Amino acid sequence: MSAVALEPDQAVAAAAGAAGEWAEQKPAVRARALTAVADALEAERAELVALADTETRLGTTRLNGELTRTTFQLRLFADQLLAGEFLDVRIDRPDPQWPSGPRPDLRRYRTGIGPVLVFAASNFPFAFSVAGGDTASAWAAGCPVVVKAHPGHPELSRLTARIIHRALAGAGAPPGVFGLIEGEQAGVDALRHSSLRAAAFTGSQRGGLALARIAAERPEPIPFYGELGSVNPVVVTPRAAEARGAEIAGGYVASLTQGAGQFCTNPGLLFVPAGDGLLDEITRLLAEVPAAPMLNERITDAYVDTAEGLARRPGARKVVWPDDPAAARPRLLAMELAAFAADQKKAAEECFGPLGLVVTYERLRDVTDAMAALPGQLTAGLHAEPDEADELGRLAATLADRSGRVLWNQWPTGVAVTHAMQHGGPYPATTAPATTSVGTAAIERFLRPVAYQSWPQRLLPPPLRDDNPWKVPQRTTGFAPTRAD
Amino acid sequence: MSAVALEPDQAVAAAAGAAGEWAEQKPAVRARALTAVADALEAERAELVALADTETRLGTTRLNGELTRTTFQLRLFADQLLAGEFLDVRIDRPDPQWPSGPRPDLRRYRTGIGPVLVFAASNFPFAFSVAGGDTASAWAAGCPVVVKAHPGHPELSRLTARIIHRALAGAGAPPGVFGLIEGEQAGVDALRHSSLRAAAFTGSQRGGLALARIAAERPEPIPFYGELGSVNPVVVTPRAAEARGAEIAGGYVASLTQGAGQFCTNPGLLFVPAGDGLLDEITRLLAEVPAAPMLNERITDAYVDTAEGLARRPGARKVVWPDDPAAARPRLLAMELAAFAADQKKAAEECFGPLGLVVTYERLRDVTDAMAALPGQLTAGLHAEPDEADELGRLAATLADRSGRVLWNQWPTGVAVTHAMQHGGPYPATTAPATTSVGTAAIERFLRPVAYQSWPQRLLPPPLRDDNPWKVPQRTTGFAPTRAD
Repeated sequence: MSAVALEPDQAVAAAAGAAGEWAEQKPAVRARALTAVADALEAERAELVALADTETRLGTTRLNGELTRTTFQLRLFADQLLAGEFLDVRIDRPDPQWPSGPRPDLRRYRTGIGPVLVFAASNFPFAFSVAGGDTASAWAAGCPVVVKAHPGHPELSRLTARIIHRALAGAGAPPGVFGLIEGEQAGVDALRHSSLRAAAFTGSQRGGLALARIAAERPEPIPFYGELGSVNPVVVTPRAAEARGAEIAGGYVASLTQGAGQFCTNPGLLFVPAGDGLLDEITRLLAEVPAAPMLNERITDAYVDTAEGLARRPGARKVVWPDDPAAARPRLLAMELAAFAADQKKAAEECFGPLGLVVTYERLRDVTDAMAALPGQLTAGLHAEPDEADELGRLAATLADRSGRVLWNQWPTGVAVTHAMQHGGPYPATTAPATTSVGTAAIERFLRPVAYQSWPQRLLPPPLRDDNPWKVPQRTTGFAPTRAD
Repeated sequence: MSAVALEPDQAVAAAAGAAGEWAEQKPAVRARALTAVADALEAERAELVALADTETRLGTTRLNGELTRTTFQLRLFADQLLAGEFLDVRIDRPDPQWPSGPRPDLRRYRTGIGPVLVFAASNFPFAFSVAGGDTASAWAAGCPVVVKAHPGHPELSRLTARIIHRALAGAGAPPGVFGLIEGEQAGVDALRHSSLRAAAFTGSQRGGLALARIAAERPEPIPFYGELGSVNPVVVTPRAAEARGAEIAGGYVASLTQGAGQFCTNPGLLFVPAGDGLLDEITRLLAEVPAAPMLNERITDAYVDTAEGLARRPGARKVVWPDDPAAARPRLLAMELAAFAADQKKAAEECFGPLGLVVTYERLRDVTDAMAALPGQLTAGLHAEPDEADELGRLAATLADRSGRVLWNQWPTGVAVTHAMQHGGPYPATTAPATTSVGTAAIERFLRPVAYQSWPQRLLPPPLRDDNPWKVPQRTTGFAPTRAD
């Protein structure tokens, strides 16, 4: 146990102690705290990136970019706090003529759900770790956060925690708004703590589902927002393959091997027309990509094991495969669609690392059928020509039905932090398909509505008061249809 | 099995077949279908109310009011559909200078989650049954609905279903948008159907938690929105008791016995100052209330059994109790706060029916402590004088922490159907504390976000297109802070 890490009981109890004050503060106060954390991380950038590189081998270019994304994310949530719309304030004034019976004075807003436990991920030591998106969005919602550090970057987690503690104290945040815990058992103990109100997780299906079960089996079950990864299928139409085969092959290989394939949006499953040369081109390009160091030996071993297991599925052919069976090199399997469709549940299993499975097809409509039977995905992609029409409507609808984000002629790695981003998807890509863990909508996971009926002005939360001291948007007219139709 | 009811497989399969078309339709088309159902129910009002009275014994005054509320609710969701905000359209245009890296064209909206199973409740044969709030909000979201009829009003359920089928067909809705199933096993089978995407339930904790477990243990778990009832604690301050004792006693007794106490918002738990006469006044008034028929014999028996069980808790005194132990008459128990606090988990158990537990206290701050330890509640009430200050802040915050709706000098029965209503609350009052089952926000339970990245205009869902053919609100500027601060 390091000097900065807390015992789980201590961390959750401190979070519970801070929850009321933190949630009730003016959004601008929390915005200042988030900005202070962003500033403090920027001030220690050189040390943070160097330490992260030592612990994750991801390289300083990528890590600098990731830290920029992380501090931007904190500032974006600070902006969202100042806008105030996340409170979703609704005010219904008394109406004795309301058609379903007299309407009392009703005022509803959303407030922080309470202490949140964040399980940090290994593959994004900044953006999905101690000061990452889950932490930022939970803080923004008004929730104290306990982070369970990922053992893949322990010293970076502690340094980040110390920087956060100093920044929050400087910004006047109540103690308990942030706490770090370490170790698998500590994470489970915190998840079972009676004062905890929600948890967020980014990582493997196996780990995530085990934790989701613990959250569901507590005496008081709590929401568990697990982002568990997927194979992110991509379909290339015959016409796109013919028109832009080389470009598509290059884009695919770059996306598949980016960051040693260690992204939850890695395009692990590609559907290409049989016999058009696209598979050959991908094979040629991928064979030239050298091994990149993976996060650690455990992850490398798991990658190699999973890849070998997939290679033994019926109908799978090794197309690009290293002579050294233990090498962390990119690998490529190929399969015909019929074989894939017959074994799809196993063949479409996620392999964390630079492994691609290319499925060759004869008829595009068979791909649509296979796609409809796939488990839920974070993303699904389509490479087609702008003027194609046959089959594309049904295929596009199927892609949108089975995933949270669909892409046209682009690759899924790289998740922009924006207002319209959706980083989620049907089970088992996530455990909560109606939510996102990236983008400003991520705040919605940590809010809980409360309505005040006929409550006196002076005891109302400030955003619900008539004098609106925080100047937040107040919806007082319902959703009456305002548009000609 | 009646002629109108389907087999569960058949009903869910038909719903799945209709899901795409229904979700993709222009909101105005769904609004017309909801309105057609409302009109058709109104046209059959006399027959519906008479049949409901035969099956539920709730009386025609109450049932007419409830049907009005039900058709109003359908029209309110139709209005919300026309307003289009529920789609939450967000459009981020490409921005190569976006601080966290180049931003692609991203367009996000919310669409129907897919087929929804609704478990009808016994105590509201219209408003929480076949054409009730769960059905209306799921339809509005774009989801086909399968309703598992409540066995307490089978013929009414079938008549309602026939009216719905005719109205939807007349409005051109695809077959499969609505289906009725009957029987406990049919409900479980439908809940386990692989094509089902969400379920909603209003009823007992025991039944709801059993179904919630089935939903969570499916190969693909789905959201389960259970509204499981609560005891809805109400606190009377010493000053309020002194100033308005008779009015408070009268209001309490009326709310407790309304509809034979068969409301999930029934005020089952009342905290009053010791020795101020309020308990005596309540006792006097309640003893005069005659027995009202409960929904059926099974419910009457359960009421009597639960009441007797609570009367045996340590420290409980029978204050108003019928000589005939099986009578469906109102009952009152009293307890001192110390005894209640020592046994609170059992003593605060919900009793469906007109049973009140009055807890007498010496110090208001001890009530706050007891309230903080209560399980989650749908509502919590406070009767106080406008100029009171001591203790009220902490007590009010605790009430809001433990419930979904807090009331000032009003009683919790009667849930207005409005924009700002929150009918939900922390577990175990509901299984999904961030949601409501009444009011326009209920639609949010049945929506799922999808983002389209760099997607061609002609393949985008209409609400995401630049030409905005449905004329829905499109947010294109994010949440930049727009307010001075």
